[in-house]
Amino acid sequence: MKEINLDYAAATPVDEKVLEAMLPFFTEHYGNPSSGHNLGEKPRQALEEARAEVGRLIGIEEPGKNKIIFTASASEANNLAIKGIVTAGKRRGNRIITSAIEHFSILNQLRSLEKEGYEIVKLPVDESGLVSPGQLKEALNDQTILVSIQVANTEIGTIQPIKELVAIATEQEIPFHSDATAAAGWIPLNVEALGVDMLTLAGDQLYGPKGAGALFVKRGIRLRPLIEGGIQEQGLRAGTENVPAIVGFGEAARLAYTHLQKRSEQVASFRDKLKESLFKEIPHLHLNGHPEKRLPWNLNISVEFVEGEALLMRLNMEGIYVSSGSSCTSQALKSSHVLDAIGSPPELAQGSLLLAAGLKSREEDIPGITEKMSEVASLLRKMSPLYHQYLKEAQNNANV
Amino acid sequence: MKEINLDYAAATPVDEKVLEAMLPFFTEHYGNPSSGHNLGEKPRQALEEARAEVGRLIGIEEPGKNKIIFTASASEANNLAIKGIVTAGKRRGNRIITSAIEHFSILNQLRSLEKEGYEIVKLPVDESGLVSPGQLKEALNDQTILVSIQVANTEIGTIQPIKELVAIATEQEIPFHSDATAAAGWIPLNVEALGVDMLTLAGDQLYGPKGAGALFVKRGIRLRPLIEGGIQEQGLRAGTENVPAIVGFGEAARLAYTHLQKRSEQVASFRDKLKESLFKEIPHLHLNGHPEKRLPWNLNISVEFVEGEALLMRLNMEGIYVSSGSSCTSQALKSSHVLDAIGSPPELAQGSLLLAAGLKSREEDIPGITEKMSEVASLLRKMSPLYHQYLKEAQNNANV
Repeated sequence: MKEINLDYAAATPVDEKVLEAMLPFFTEHYGNPSSGHNLGEKPRQALEEARAEVGRLIGIEEPGKNKIIFTASASEANNLAIKGIVTAGKRRGNRIITSAIEHFSILNQLRSLEKEGYEIVKLPVDESGLVSPGQLKEALNDQTILVSIQVANTEIGTIQPIKELVAIATEQEIPFHSDATAAAGWIPLNVEALGVDMLTLAGDQLYGPKGAGALFVKRGIRLRPLIEGGIQEQGLRAGTENVPAIVGFGEAARLAYTHLQKRSEQVASFRDKLKESLFKEIPHLHLNGHPEKRLPWNLNISVEFVEGEALLMRLNMEGIYVSSGSSCTSQALKSSHVLDAIGSPPELAQGSLLLAAGLKSREEDIPGITEKMSEVASLLRKMSPLYHQYLKEAQNNANV
Repeated sequence: MKEINLDYAAATPVDEKVLEAMLPFFTEHYGNPSSGHNLGEKPRQALEEARAEVGRLIGIEEPGKNKIIFTASASEANNLAIKGIVTAGKRRGNRIITSAIEHFSILNQLRSLEKEGYEIVKLPVDESGLVSPGQLKEALNDQTILVSIQVANTEIGTIQPIKELVAIATEQEIPFHSDATAAAGWIPLNVEALGVDMLTLAGDQLYGPKGAGALFVKRGIRLRPLIEGGIQEQGLRAGTENVPAIVGFGEAARLAYTHLQKRSEQVASFRDKLKESLFKEIPHLHLNGHPEKRLPWNLNISVEFVEGEALLMRLNMEGIYVSSGSSCTSQALKSSHVLDAIGSPPELAQGSLLLAAGLKSREEDIPGITEKMSEVASLLRKMSPLYHQYLKEAQNNANV
């Protein structure tokens, strides 16, 4: 059976060049970067080269301005950013502003902080997933210690007006963190131009290995480490550095930076053709997220009268792999908080599918994907009592 | 120039079999274990197999009793254990007991907790590095919420009477965490027989890859996650699992378990012969740590009249790689807190060297190592004013 992956948001394979760059650091240059002798040298250099490459991907050319802290994941970077600034205790106040459609590694820690007495303000988004700059401005007060709003949403792909949002917070000297996990490598990012104080990234979203994330921290921002111990990563993240994974992240960042435009155009072209084909052949489809301001690889649709989880399972049997939203919660079988936030009615939110294109997505597969999705959707639709009710009403209306 | 690594405590190369086990998970089985479709299946299975292997290494045969939480490092596991239990807030009290010779990922977070108002009791150790069970008993009171004492010390190799120590805490229903990073794979460990509530491990200490640590947590122990977000690792550690590294850790644990006795005997034999040779040829040597109760790979010596850092640098130029203590602090150029704790006088503590044998250490290299160390020690000794003072006094005493 031919297998087609349309879930590259959950995981990307490691690029062959990336793996090649990593390999020597498992067996040959296996030293500890903290070692004072020769065996530490090559790993130490490689770490700094990777740091420079990851920096370049987010617009940092000057090494002096590069304060990239390597972590094991975007989730860890998000926790370091928020808990780090909160527990550093340098700022007075207890209000933290975020958006309703952040990743769970933001929202769940904020829920914990709320229990500890922090005031968490979740800004709503409009029906396309956009945060309103005006609402951010209104939410800020002199108790506000942090704003955390993502660059773009992994589920519905909506890209926020980050530069504008940052300017509002910065005017009041409130630090701004942004989760760029879904965006980095796919849209141009420049931390200086955006003005963000902290930015989260992950290697496994851009054909790098799992196990390497990063937090950019602007000079002057004080954090308390999440993992305390040794003085690795400028004292902000203890533990032996995962050299091979970081080297892989660096190489993946280099490739992503070099081929950014080409890659984006490639996945957007596939995505647009797939969208066109699906909307032409399958009735009762709805697009979720912003029609233009969206990540090039992202297509999120709701299939009316059809439950997303059932669709996912049937497509899985046909060798087509899609997701019903964030992979971090797919085992939890909850409806998506992102679709709830954009005001998607429950029956559509339940039927949402994230189709995430990747570098190996092939346009020649689109007719096959469309045919199978159409078949499965049609089958499931016929099993839906709501659909039969809809047909009956349509019939009645026609008869009137 | 022939290179000889005597610093396997800082890093071990990844075993060829381990790397082989990992490779398919970078490019072929690259899926996200949380995915509901087929691409998540193989990674998910592999995670559970690795969990079983790591469990087996610490004596867990029944899957139901296996609550292994994978982390990115031993430092993270240590932080999860201590901060996790403290912030879960299930226990009343503010006293935490530890030893003076723990790893910095224990001591530095306890220093932070001390600033927050916790009472931290650092038990002293005797001149061989042993904690006294009697002193632990005296230190416990009804305010004690946790004891954290390592299985064995990475710097001086001393193995604690953990079973006895655990029994004392358990009698008073106080949870016991133990850092087994330096010990796992080198001495038999059985969490049930030991009675510990939490145990820290790391893959890169046993020929597994960097980037994979683990915390064993006994059923009934409640922790708050350090990294909040998705529901991975039983809700105790959010973020996409580093599947290749965890698979590597599992294979390394399997190999370590299978060959434990042979490996231990092999490194102990090398270590003992090296020790004999060095003590025969080099004057003014002192052994640090317990003469028998010590890890099989560990040799820690002080060279009187000679500064360890200078010795390390000279040996490095000769292609012999040793460390002056913990690699997490080697860049900090501080004297070792472990040697201070065993009452080593500053002039000896400054001259301490950790010689950590590994599976590739060869007995035929011992004469060469001895010769070079003897030469370098002799050269440095002659540059020491203290040595000349010592010679003069010896001369005077002889003349009397």
